[in-house]
Amino acid sequence: MGIGVHKVAMAAPSDVSELERLIAAGAVDPATIVAFIGKTEGNGGANDFTRGFATLSYQLMLARHLGCTPEEVTRRIAFVWSGGCEGVLSPHATVFTRGPDGAPAGSGKRLALGIAGTRAFAPEEIGTMAVVEAVAEAVDRARREAGIADPRDVHYVQVKGPLLTPAGLADADRRGVALVTRDPNGSKAFARGSTALGVALGLGEVPASAVTQEAIATRMDLFSAVASTSAGGELKACEILLFGNAEGAGGEFQIGHAVLEDAIDAGGVRAALADAGLPDAGGSPDTGRIAAVFAKAEASPSGMIRGRRNTMLSDADINYERHARAALGAVIASITGDPAIFVSGGTEHQCAPGSAPIAAIVRARS
Amino acid sequence: MGIGVHKVAMAAPSDVSELERLIAAGAVDPATIVAFIGKTEGNGGANDFTRGFATLSYQLMLARHLGCTPEEVTRRIAFVWSGGCEGVLSPHATVFTRGPDGAPAGSGKRLALGIAGTRAFAPEEIGTMAVVEAVAEAVDRARREAGIADPRDVHYVQVKGPLLTPAGLADADRRGVALVTRDPNGSKAFARGSTALGVALGLGEVPASAVTQEAIATRMDLFSAVASTSAGGELKACEILLFGNAEGAGGEFQIGHAVLEDAIDAGGVRAALADAGLPDAGGSPDTGRIAAVFAKAEASPSGMIRGRRNTMLSDADINYERHARAALGAVIASITGDPAIFVSGGTEHQCAPGSAPIAAIVRARS
Amino acid sequence: MGIGVHKVAMAAPSDVSELERLIAAGAVDPATIVAFIGKTEGNGGANDFTRGFATLSYQLMLARHLGCTPEEVTRRIAFVWSGGCEGVLSPHATVFTRGPDGAPAGSGKRLALGIAGTRAFAPEEIGTMAVVEAVAEAVDRARREAGIADPRDVHYVQVKGPLLTPAGLADADRRGVALVTRDPNGSKAFARGSTALGVALGLGEVPASAVTQEAIATRMDLFSAVASTSAGGELKACEILLFGNAEGAGGEFQIGHAVLEDAIDAGGVRAALADAGLPDAGGSPDTGRIAAVFAKAEASPSGMIRGRRNTMLSDADINYERHARAALGAVIASITGDPAIFVSGGTEHQCAPGSAPIAAIVRARS
Amino acid sequence: MGIGVHKVAMAAPSDVSELERLIAAGAVDPATIVAFIGKTEGNGGANDFTRGFATLSYQLMLARHLGCTPEEVTRRIAFVWSGGCEGVLSPHATVFTRGPDGAPAGSGKRLALGIAGTRAFAPEEIGTMAVVEAVAEAVDRARREAGIADPRDVHYVQVKGPLLTPAGLADADRRGVALVTRDPNGSKAFARGSTALGVALGLGEVPASAVTQEAIATRMDLFSAVASTSAGGELKACEILLFGNAEGAGGEFQIGHAVLEDAIDAGGVRAALADAGLPDAGGSPDTGRIAAVFAKAEASPSGMIRGRRNTMLSDADINYERHARAALGAVIASITGDPAIFVSGGTEHQCAPGSAPIAAIVRARS
Repeated sequence: MGIGVHKVAMAAPSDVSELERLIAAGAVDPATIVAFIGKTEGNGGANDFTRGFATLSYQLMLARHLGCTPEEVTRRIAFVWSGGCEGVLSPHATVFTRGPDGAPAGSGKRLALGIAGTRAFAPEEIGTMAVVEAVAEAVDRARREAGIADPRDVHYVQVKGPLLTPAGLADADRRGVALVTRDPNGSKAFARGSTALGVALGLGEVPASAVTQEAIATRMDLFSAVASTSAGGELKACEILLFGNAEGAGGEFQIGHAVLEDAIDAGGVRAALADAGLPDAGGSPDTGRIAAVFAKAEASPSGMIRGRRNTMLSDADINYERHARAALGAVIASITGDPAIFVSGGTEHQCAPGSAPIAAIVRARS
Repeated sequence: MGIGVHKVAMAAPSDVSELERLIAAGAVDPATIVAFIGKTEGNGGANDFTRGFATLSYQLMLARHLGCTPEEVTRRIAFVWSGGCEGVLSPHATVFTRGPDGAPAGSGKRLALGIAGTRAFAPEEIGTMAVVEAVAEAVDRARREAGIADPRDVHYVQVKGPLLTPAGLADADRRGVALVTRDPNGSKAFARGSTALGVALGLGEVPASAVTQEAIATRMDLFSAVASTSAGGELKACEILLFGNAEGAGGEFQIGHAVLEDAIDAGGVRAALADAGLPDAGGSPDTGRIAAVFAKAEASPSGMIRGRRNTMLSDADINYERHARAALGAVIASITGDPAIFVSGGTEHQCAPGSAPIAAIVRARS
Repeated sequence: MGIGVHKVAMAAPSDVSELERLIAAGAVDPATIVAFIGKTEGNGGANDFTRGFATLSYQLMLARHLGCTPEEVTRRIAFVWSGGCEGVLSPHATVFTRGPDGAPAGSGKRLALGIAGTRAFAPEEIGTMAVVEAVAEAVDRARREAGIADPRDVHYVQVKGPLLTPAGLADADRRGVALVTRDPNGSKAFARGSTALGVALGLGEVPASAVTQEAIATRMDLFSAVASTSAGGELKACEILLFGNAEGAGGEFQIGHAVLEDAIDAGGVRAALADAGLPDAGGSPDTGRIAAVFAKAEASPSGMIRGRRNTMLSDADINYERHARAALGAVIASITGDPAIFVSGGTEHQCAPGSAPIAAIVRARS
Repeated sequence: MGIGVHKVAMAAPSDVSELERLIAAGAVDPATIVAFIGKTEGNGGANDFTRGFATLSYQLMLARHLGCTPEEVTRRIAFVWSGGCEGVLSPHATVFTRGPDGAPAGSGKRLALGIAGTRAFAPEEIGTMAVVEAVAEAVDRARREAGIADPRDVHYVQVKGPLLTPAGLADADRRGVALVTRDPNGSKAFARGSTALGVALGLGEVPASAVTQEAIATRMDLFSAVASTSAGGELKACEILLFGNAEGAGGEFQIGHAVLEDAIDAGGVRAALADAGLPDAGGSPDTGRIAAVFAKAEASPSGMIRGRRNTMLSDADINYERHARAALGAVIASITGDPAIFVSGGTEHQCAPGSAPIAAIVRARS
């Protein structure tokens, strides 16, 4: 059976009704669910509680269906949310299921998924080599679990890790330990950067000798081309979801990826679709075959896009990540026809500065 | 010579240096400038002062070059600014010049421009039939001035009119007169709606009998397909800039328009370019020929885009106009390759609900 | 025993640990809890989900302690949250308990609390006389339940009712019924105004003949001096918490109220404390006796405060309610010394325009 | 005659009419104006252009009255604006005039003002010792100019200096020079911190040996108790306005200062008024004698105020400076009765962490 991919809309962070209908209709077996990747309608910042609310809501519903406690749901299923539905982005979750062993394999390489976690980190470890190394180890574990032999068959590695919170800051102060920064919103660069470098290290994209504490959030020439990392105040440990194509994985999906050169790179969007097996025949792809798109959005570090000045970085009213997600989300949706896309912000060590990763999951041609 | 079109970037609302360089280089004769249409990097709301700052800055510079007072510059040149550079939108001005009479005409219809103004309005007239009728009369005047015989050759009518301000509200209260609304930010729908209905009436797009006070901001089936109206607290009267193609107009530009069905309607963007004479050969237009694009962005009134829920209207942190401009601006720029686009918000009586007008000015093939 | 008043801090909308500690320590018997009134750290708008997250979190915790379902907790306990911790306002809940019957009464009038609910309302009823009348009836019921004979002994009536949501709007459209407004954030004035008029009607503060559909959100000379109403998208019915002093109520608390003339009316704050029995001896009250303060904050409808222009109403970046709560919350905290205050926005029909109610619960002198 | 103090309201950043009326009425001689300190209604961030708009507007008006160029006005008069009118804060300017030499002195010490500037700084110098040392030298110069012999008679030193802008960042990148930070909004701490340390050094509040590059924005135990510094993208050099009391200064005003322990420290506000000669007789000061109040607002670095958690620092929607200004401005206005107060954000090296300076100018008792 392989990996199943189900996109469900959400009318609020606590709305679990669409998945519940799929379960009631027999379209999704709750016992096979292994991961959620979704967008919630918060502000995407340190005080965005919509992610935690969505997780709790799905946990309660699934605990009821699985006859277990909500805590056990958390141990069985990975939840990755990005807050912030700017522009046309629509709140939703993509639910991944994994079929029973021994299912008949499709012909050729098909979507495979490996999931791994790290230990919990103390506030003073956020943004440090302790995170980099733990993530690298977990990425390797996830790749093997997914049955992907060649790291080049890995197309998307989603990592969600902890963010420095005011509570974490106070805790560190009590114990007299130093932090990489004292600004909760400012800790995102270090938090996301360290987990992305962990992916790059785990997949062999960068030499181990180059990855040092000083490199985190500064040596931007070191990066992973397939990492997409986010950080949330509600987490202590990192969760890694590694996607690729594996021979014998079975199922009906393929994944591909590409690099977005800037926030309006329509060509990059089309390249990711093509890499996943959806050619742009006659100028418009067969969008009905697209199951999910995951991308990162970023403000141009030069303050310029295609030779024009951009004001994202100097705007004190709206955070630059919100501007970037609004722009890229609309460009992708203008091509795929579906605003329920996972676009998250912050590309530290994820592609070269100014660039960003994009991955697409597409139904294989039968 | 016809109408000249010059796009100048702005490093701040007060940055007039790029136009000054064009003047110094002889590329623009300041005596021929008739209008500015541009984007400034404010919030686009009632307390956005970047528009007034830009106008004052250009007035001072041009007064120096023209040897006149800043007030005289205002009488000679129309300034239309939309605040809000969300997403990738880049601060800039498109400067329109008008060549001397008797210039050799190009072959075929070319870009023509008519400019007209209305009288000043009292706060209690904002959003009323008094505005509708004055705008309709001015639109007719502008069309004749532009030398456009057939209203169907009109492709874009930009109207900027007054908004209700706290000062206007206080003034009305002192005089004991009623207003269409008491909410300054809420007056935008009435302000923009009444001027758009004025365009529709002036171009014969709607029957005069249907245009009543009750229809303003409620009868959304009454609209203009070529109006783009905005409102600003710094204005008392309306300024109308009417663009179309006229036989014998001369010059090197053509204008066309289309309707955007939603904020991610890439097809609508391509249709406007094609209508202006830029075919989408082989999937990608010759973007070097595009001189300027003007569009309106709007939240979906149904709260849905392509079957997915949209959160613009319920977001209390970021105004829905800012979400809509961010999305549409990025989609247009992903096709034209230039983020210096005029995208403004609010489409009351401008195309059918949920739709929005887009116009493109393109260099004619020599 | 009478009414107990316990203020608990919250480190996040989902943080129920401080109440859990009070329960563990025997300081609060969960079976006696009847109501929560609190502030959560959202934006206070239509897309603020922190209120629902807090309710769900307390429901789950209390269901565990009470050995019942979360749904049963909702039937037993009223939850009233106001989103938005602007300025110094601190996230917290004030938890009200009601002792067993027959408890020995304190001498003199003491804090009494009556709770009542209305039926659920359809989207098209929000902001209409249907709500006004149902609230008036429930207010009367709550007063009798509290054992308060004279309506003049009622000092504070908190009402939380439904807000128009995008989902409600879509539902109404499907059924082809008209709404008082189509703007979710704009529906707050109608939603809060209709419940406040219901309080005024229920307490006999306004003549029944004057309260008509047309009066809602327009006849601002009709108001309650003790109503504090809010509206949230997560509610369908109205919940009324009526507070006053009753002979024989027992317990250690007294309540008083006053009117705030503007957002910086320190004298009004002191008057409320004095009315509750806390005199301002020598310029500074004995703040240790203050148990809770509840107030409403509002932008000045004239745009002026003490003869100076105020920019709240024209600010397109920050909603005027957030400005008003930030200001008033700081003024109150500067007098009481405690930033954990309930300050909510929107005073439609709650005191005269520009004024706002404030109530204080104070420990009676033994 | 001494120093004159005139507060003028502003209906917009470009509204200069109230000062123009004072000039027309003979109440202010434009030739005697030496400085403006005011609040404008922008967002207070790197993209707040209301400050520059206000300066330009006053320059144009005064150039007309003084018969000179706007540039010459800039050389003669210091303009210090803080953007952000949160809560009740009202847009205004306090205009300072200096009478002719030889004017009859009042009895006792009276308000004195010294003004000095530094050279322009390159982007890479912002936030460095180059700024600290230049400001220290200018402070010393300003004190001598004001005729204040003892640094302890200095009560308020306002410094406005440059902020790192995207343009400055690009310029530094072109030249390959390093900056203290690459984040324009994040450069405020370094920009304001370095000028505040310059004041502390210039007044002998800290030992010269302790003031090093490493100390800037980190050694928060080093500070000035009378510095109030801000930073704006429109400036290249620093402007210093030093206020104190001097024997023989003449005029009718006195200045005093105090320290605010937190954003709700009403006692600190009263202490500043008392230090300026306005006793708090019977609990309420004679507010009619207050000419101007200047204060700094800051988020609590511990995230706690009076034992309650504060959410300013984790709010991704509203910058913490805006929360802090809203709170403190309301507390001050609740005591003085006037919302036209100068409250600006950011207290790096201005009082101990969490504390902030406040100064008051009061009419001396005749």
